[in-house]
Amino acid sequence: MKEQFGNPSSTHAMGKAAERAVGISRRQVACLIGASDDREVVFTSGGTESNHTAIRSALEASEGRKKIVTSTVEHSSVRKLCDRLEKEGYEVCRIPVDRDGALSLPDFRRALDGRTAVVTLMMANNESGVIFPVAEWAEWVKACGSFFHVDAIQAPGKLALDVARSGADFISFAAHKCYGPKGVGALYVRHETKLNPLFWGGAQERGRRAGTENVAGIVGFGAACEWAGKGLEQALRDIRTLRDRFEDEITRKIPGSVVQGRRSERLPNTSLITFTGIDAEALLYALDQKNICVSMGSACLSGSNEPSHVLTAMGASEEEAKSSLRFSFGRMTHETEVTHLIAALVEWIKP
Amino acid sequence: MKEQFGNPSSTHAMGKAAERAVGISRRQVACLIGASDDREVVFTSGGTESNHTAIRSALEASEGRKKIVTSTVEHSSVRKLCDRLEKEGYEVCRIPVDRDGALSLPDFRRALDGRTAVVTLMMANNESGVIFPVAEWAEWVKACGSFFHVDAIQAPGKLALDVARSGADFISFAAHKCYGPKGVGALYVRHETKLNPLFWGGAQERGRRAGTENVAGIVGFGAACEWAGKGLEQALRDIRTLRDRFEDEITRKIPGSVVQGRRSERLPNTSLITFTGIDAEALLYALDQKNICVSMGSACLSGSNEPSHVLTAMGASEEEAKSSLRFSFGRMTHETEVTHLIAALVEWIKP
Repeated sequence: MKEQFGNPSSTHAMGKAAERAVGISRRQVACLIGASDDREVVFTSGGTESNHTAIRSALEASEGRKKIVTSTVEHSSVRKLCDRLEKEGYEVCRIPVDRDGALSLPDFRRALDGRTAVVTLMMANNESGVIFPVAEWAEWVKACGSFFHVDAIQAPGKLALDVARSGADFISFAAHKCYGPKGVGALYVRHETKLNPLFWGGAQERGRRAGTENVAGIVGFGAACEWAGKGLEQALRDIRTLRDRFEDEITRKIPGSVVQGRRSERLPNTSLITFTGIDAEALLYALDQKNICVSMGSACLSGSNEPSHVLTAMGASEEEAKSSLRFSFGRMTHETEVTHLIAALVEWIKP
Repeated sequence: MKEQFGNPSSTHAMGKAAERAVGISRRQVACLIGASDDREVVFTSGGTESNHTAIRSALEASEGRKKIVTSTVEHSSVRKLCDRLEKEGYEVCRIPVDRDGALSLPDFRRALDGRTAVVTLMMANNESGVIFPVAEWAEWVKACGSFFHVDAIQAPGKLALDVARSGADFISFAAHKCYGPKGVGALYVRHETKLNPLFWGGAQERGRRAGTENVAGIVGFGAACEWAGKGLEQALRDIRTLRDRFEDEITRKIPGSVVQGRRSERLPNTSLITFTGIDAEALLYALDQKNICVSMGSACLSGSNEPSHVLTAMGASEEEAKSSLRFSFGRMTHETEVTHLIAALVEWIKP
């Protein structure tokens, strides 16, 4: 930012240097997610914009089709957009999940028909970590002639990705979910899919996203992707080992603690735990006093006072939802930190 | 980014620290632009998003009114959005400017009527620097019951601002136009004006702009605003002195050179000069060889090969537009750099 602050659209040398930096990042992102062509990566201001761009683009390209198929456990940036689109006249079909967070496949297949404009589903849930095997469903979506949008914001650095073989038209990403900066994201747009821009104006991103590029953010995103991709498989095994040890000890030491979605395939780094009879908010603040940062539901919805829609969709009661905390582990999480966390939980819950 | 990387929406200590940092920046931005309340500042991903949010919000709130009043010299992020909205069924009334870039007031006043949903005009032109005295026109806009959006993206740090007294409902800003980072901006929303969000989802920005905040970018924007506000009046006088000296010498030493919009009030830092008979693109590359970075038209439209719509709207021929370069001066520009620039121009143009 201090030395290379050119505008990538400027034709002079400083502009060209910035343009090259953005190009390197685009390659780094494409590489981590498994895109076959760098040009399939469109940089955005984050996951919310990526989700909005994909869904609105699909609807715009689907004349005569007015149905959106989604699930009951999507992130608020998809869920609230769908609520909004319903008011604008679209039909929104929200497929339920079972107690383990798995999508009801009979309901899903029934919903797919010639009126379906877009199917929007997440790859991995931001609260429970439960994975939807979206690539397995792409064929059904394509068979009904619909666009397929996947919100994969939770996935990079936590799952091995292969977007080229996913069958999806649009896939959303956000840098801060894989150790990059906040306020930058990407939308994967399959090469044969036309993107209808959300922002009109300058010719940035090959005319698909107007607006001067967040160069520093994009460079950080690229660097984070390169870093997250290095030794990914081993790192995921290590994180899973830590997480599983945590869950095993907690459920053994704290009676009434339940790991949500445990029977489903999940991200290796996420633990959503219900501590029956415990006020999760009070527990969160107690952990914060010990420098342990955890979340109740989604950060995006904190302060809303509503119980997590993900847990209620999974059949949990309001009381269970208010007794649940989400623990996220990462590549920098050390074993001793997990020991410290377990001790803090046991101490607070069993006085 | 290395130590304070919390999510402002998280309720734990790291989240709170990030939230405080965003709050400090909001105050710094509010202070530079003259907002009466910090809450009137909504952070966005930049000028394009700010412009889109304001215009779409106004249209959504104007049931039954389908007319957009704008000018022929707006930035592409407003111009192309208006073109798009015209296709969606809105009526777009584009007010012409004269040879000096001044808006035709008779045409403007005639366009304002009970069908007008939103008036969108820029405060200062990004190519010519010509200033529209928007605050003087607010009363007419309000009298017809329309929303008033002002694109003031070029203004901070180059004009003393007083948004509270501007009469506008929405005013757009971008950090990188006042020494801040690229990819972050703000929309001023007058306290009595309701903003209809462009992005739905999380409760960020008091529910007016969903999406995890670009914390580092926002902090940079705030710091830039504080810096740009310090000694602003003296700085503007100094920049104007440099710019005027540049224009005087160039027009004296290079026959056929014309300063566009010279008879209008302009930003103190911008010079749009037509070098009659000269290929501006070749001149741009020649200057670049000497480490002098200048622009042809707007960076956002570089590579489009179209002549500048600003110059053609001002009555310039395509040939004149293709012989024109924009020079921008700043607080860090030194007199010797201007001397170097003048010598380079004279040398290249008069062989």
